[in-house]
Amino acid sequence: MVYGQSTTTMSNRRNFIKNAAIGTMASLSMPSIVSAAFAKSAPYKKVTLQQNDIVLFQGDSITEWGRDKNKSAPNDFGALGSGYVLLTASGLLREYADKQLLISNKGISGNKVFQLADRWDTDALTMKPNVLSIMVGVNDYWHTVTSGYKGTIETYRTDYHKLLDRTKQALPNVKLIIGEPFAIKGVKAVDDSWYPAFDAYREAARKAADDFGAAFIPYQAVMDEAMNHAAADYWSIDGVHPSVAGAALMAHAWQETVKG
Amino acid sequence: MVYGQSTTTMSNRRNFIKNAAIGTMASLSMPSIVSAAFAKSAPYKKVTLQQNDIVLFQGDSITEWGRDKNKSAPNDFGALGSGYVLLTASGLLREYADKQLLISNKGISGNKVFQLADRWDTDALTMKPNVLSIMVGVNDYWHTVTSGYKGTIETYRTDYHKLLDRTKQALPNVKLIIGEPFAIKGVKAVDDSWYPAFDAYREAARKAADDFGAAFIPYQAVMDEAMNHAAADYWSIDGVHPSVAGAALMAHAWQETVKG
Repeated sequence: MVYGQSTTTMSNRRNFIKNAAIGTMASLSMPSIVSAAFAKSAPYKKVTLQQNDIVLFQGDSITEWGRDKNKSAPNDFGALGSGYVLLTASGLLREYADKQLLISNKGISGNKVFQLADRWDTDALTMKPNVLSIMVGVNDYWHTVTSGYKGTIETYRTDYHKLLDRTKQALPNVKLIIGEPFAIKGVKAVDDSWYPAFDAYREAARKAADDFGAAFIPYQAVMDEAMNHAAADYWSIDGVHPSVAGAALMAHAWQETVKG
Repeated sequence: MVYGQSTTTMSNRRNFIKNAAIGTMASLSMPSIVSAAFAKSAPYKKVTLQQNDIVLFQGDSITEWGRDKNKSAPNDFGALGSGYVLLTASGLLREYADKQLLISNKGISGNKVFQLADRWDTDALTMKPNVLSIMVGVNDYWHTVTSGYKGTIETYRTDYHKLLDRTKQALPNVKLIIGEPFAIKGVKAVDDSWYPAFDAYREAARKAADDFGAAFIPYQAVMDEAMNHAAADYWSIDGVHPSVAGAALMAHAWQETVKG
């Protein structure tokens, strides 16, 4: 009963819900795909958003998606891009308008964990985020296949652990959210050869989240559930990068891991 | 009781809702700003989305927002841009994944009604949309102040009526959605001098919606309600163009006018 955790959230909701008749529920957005996916990883941790929180998104091309690297103001269209980060930010800025969140995107295409580490002081720690969302890992596997990258699953595990340890040292109170790397088999770049090797990266990301008390977003479970509703190429452009529909699902799942 | 209209929608929802306990409601997205705004224009019309519907967004810069005019594939990031159209499309593609909607954006910056009319065959009628969303009007007023445009409120009324009449002639079954032009007083471009002149454009858009059986999105009421939750410049960049937060609200309001 995954929603049992939300009792505290309920009391924070605006009066709207207090007056809600049962018929009202029909007009609310139904997180059916996301809720089904999260139900499988219950109980799950939620991060509480607070007034003026700085929310930083870090990752690879899935995170960077369309952002203008010359723009750095928080909550800015150009700086946020047009992928799941913009979609998540727009949802947060609407739903938690009273919190005056400051949301930034520093994802860079192609990044693996060691490349996040190389720019971590500038692009994460000095920004002093209160909420830090990291999604990295698909390139740590994919580039071993396509680009001769020599890192192994153990490199990923070790590098990720070091990055999170360094983060917690610098920002002891940071609220961490770790997104699961995912792949959609059968769409362009992703075929049977990815498995079971790629699964270990997903597991390592979940373990890292557990080890560091981070909220974990089970994107693979979300995408797997989504494929019960529409074909794989409805949700992903190439097996690695989400379509507009896939990015919308990611944003919905991200928002499921926070509460006001 | 604005939500009373949604009884038919309810039966179409997935099993999730059937099993919902009252506690479940807390995790659903709360459309509090949007629902408060729509309550003031109740009862309001909803458009029903059907399988394979072609959904076209038409309008000015608010609609165009970041789209690549060289891209025309439906549901494509570049073709949709990064404004309220992308945010709406992402919500629709997620929530109604089973309907396989085909969503396009043909907004062009600076457009007034007569400029939509000039390109209507190519950019609307030949695309044979099943759902046609039009938002136009702020430039019909604004350009009289800034650019020496000579059109009047009567020009706007007449041109809009002709455009909708022509649309209904060509596409008798099209489901029309008309967005209210809005302005946020006190942010940059918009000051007291806009009123009451600008209000007549909002009223004319609502009248056009009524005359042609269109669903109407009361964006001004939505923005007015939003300013109870955060300052004007949280919702709009310059009084005319929405911020990320404002675009998110528009997308939410748009989605409130449709059902599956």
